[in-house]
Amino acid sequence: MNELQKYTSLIDVELGKIGLPSSPEKLYDPLRYFLQIGGKRIRPMLTLLSSELFDSSADKALPQALCIEVFHNFTLIHDDIMDEAPLRRNQQTIHEKWNRDVAILSGDVLMIKAYQLLGNIDSKLLPEAFALFNKTAIEVCEGQQMDMDFEERSDVSIDEYIEMIRLKTSVLLGCALEIGAIVAESSKEDREAIYDFGQHIGIAFQIQDDILDLYADPDKFGKQVGGDVIANKKTMLYLTALKGATKEQLEVMKQLQGEQNLVLKVDSTRRLFDQLNVRSICEERMQEHYDIAMTSFAKVNVDASKKQTLIGLAAFLMNREL
Amino acid sequence: MNELQKYTSLIDVELGKIGLPSSPEKLYDPLRYFLQIGGKRIRPMLTLLSSELFDSSADKALPQALCIEVFHNFTLIHDDIMDEAPLRRNQQTIHEKWNRDVAILSGDVLMIKAYQLLGNIDSKLLPEAFALFNKTAIEVCEGQQMDMDFEERSDVSIDEYIEMIRLKTSVLLGCALEIGAIVAESSKEDREAIYDFGQHIGIAFQIQDDILDLYADPDKFGKQVGGDVIANKKTMLYLTALKGATKEQLEVMKQLQGEQNLVLKVDSTRRLFDQLNVRSICEERMQEHYDIAMTSFAKVNVDASKKQTLIGLAAFLMNREL
Repeated sequence: MNELQKYTSLIDVELGKIGLPSSPEKLYDPLRYFLQIGGKRIRPMLTLLSSELFDSSADKALPQALCIEVFHNFTLIHDDIMDEAPLRRNQQTIHEKWNRDVAILSGDVLMIKAYQLLGNIDSKLLPEAFALFNKTAIEVCEGQQMDMDFEERSDVSIDEYIEMIRLKTSVLLGCALEIGAIVAESSKEDREAIYDFGQHIGIAFQIQDDILDLYADPDKFGKQVGGDVIANKKTMLYLTALKGATKEQLEVMKQLQGEQNLVLKVDSTRRLFDQLNVRSICEERMQEHYDIAMTSFAKVNVDASKKQTLIGLAAFLMNREL
Repeated sequence: MNELQKYTSLIDVELGKIGLPSSPEKLYDPLRYFLQIGGKRIRPMLTLLSSELFDSSADKALPQALCIEVFHNFTLIHDDIMDEAPLRRNQQTIHEKWNRDVAILSGDVLMIKAYQLLGNIDSKLLPEAFALFNKTAIEVCEGQQMDMDFEERSDVSIDEYIEMIRLKTSVLLGCALEIGAIVAESSKEDREAIYDFGQHIGIAFQIQDDILDLYADPDKFGKQVGGDVIANKKTMLYLTALKGATKEQLEVMKQLQGEQNLVLKVDSTRRLFDQLNVRSICEERMQEHYDIAMTSFAKVNVDASKKQTLIGLAAFLMNREL
């Protein structure tokens, strides 16, 4: 995916030029710091690639691509407060490096900044882009609230869980793509199709993320295998196991939650999940959404040759060989 | 100001109909609760009156009036977290009644809701309204940050203080009026003039607020006289005293900050401020901004007879007889 590096670099450079004032320092220094922590910049890349797919230029969609990335960073800043996360990409989070109030307020101003970037668009396209972005932003907040609610519930269904990840993370991928399509003035049908492509790739990606936590190759996986298990997170794997477990297995799951020997905890959980066929049930669900994504993308009315970059990006996200 | 009651009632009713979903409950219940706590609804009233001033209807500007009020409530929810305020209008604040995370996230979604309301406008007017609102929203955050910064500084100048209140509270009054003027498709000159009217009335109002803390008639004042003094707040009175004080008086001011007898603290502070002529210096500054406001309003190119309601509202805000 080396050809995508140029987009990441472009976005990194442009994020440094979105015009954050120097003062008040405590409002803007944290944002400069946070935006340069980096990331794969997948979301803004989707906007640029979508704009190009529909025969517009990446440049024309650049403010909207930055809008999506800036909004995403706003959600990270506030989510980090709520999760009390000390680190983000191995760097201190804003509430940790400064304090809670700085993280709240600089997050707020970053969200407004996202809107300001969005507004840098042909004025006839603004109403549509604005409506889509508002709807998406509200859904992302709803997803975050559902995620927090689930921590306190023991009766979360798999459908509810998928609805939560759809709102919390996947709609923003759909929105990123559709905004690129809006800038490129594509048809309503194409816009809907590419939105669905993004949304379902997002869901598939999140399910994969849950699977990889326990089943990734430790040599290739960037983080500790079993992190979700150790943290007793209600992931897709856990909920699937919960649904299929016998009374005895439920008892074992309950005991494992309190297990202090972490290696034993992770290994025993994996063994139990294997007995319950959890991995393949989740992979099936992931495949379903991947297939919907691809079917939606096939409906987009542009030459197949132009679609290769986005198909490649989807495959890259899903850890697949083409 | 009984004729303004109908606007307050209209806004109260319409705020109940902005379409907050029932779920997630923890996201939307706090907002329904907070929006019905009430208030004078001055900001949305300004939008409606401005729209009518320029021969448009109040109804047409209703979504934008609600946008301003909803945005104002978002700032209150997040400010209350930062100030660790337990009460707002004698009702529990959201972070107190629910918790910090609920207050952060429901505040976030309320800000997005403000944008959604803003968007309910003739699409040709959206770019201007959007740009003004974005600029204002950013300034309000900057003002809040300056306010927090000032708490930790001992060298705040009076000009800096006025810039802080301009950003934190006054620009939103200007914006409320100008958005009404945008909806009514008034001229650029009229829009600028009415914005300045709102902005300077806002500054005068805030200075008055500081003066009243210590010099209000206790029988008519809604809250404890001297509250700012007791809390050692750096108000306009305090900064003016600081500027004029001799070395000995500075020493007295410093001692009074730690005074445990609160009646003595307030009375001694008032006596010291009186020696320094603090009240009239501040009143002069307040009058300056009131005069700029009125001069700006005089420039608005509509019949004097139509201006009476807004002039009346300004006089009401400034506790003045007409």
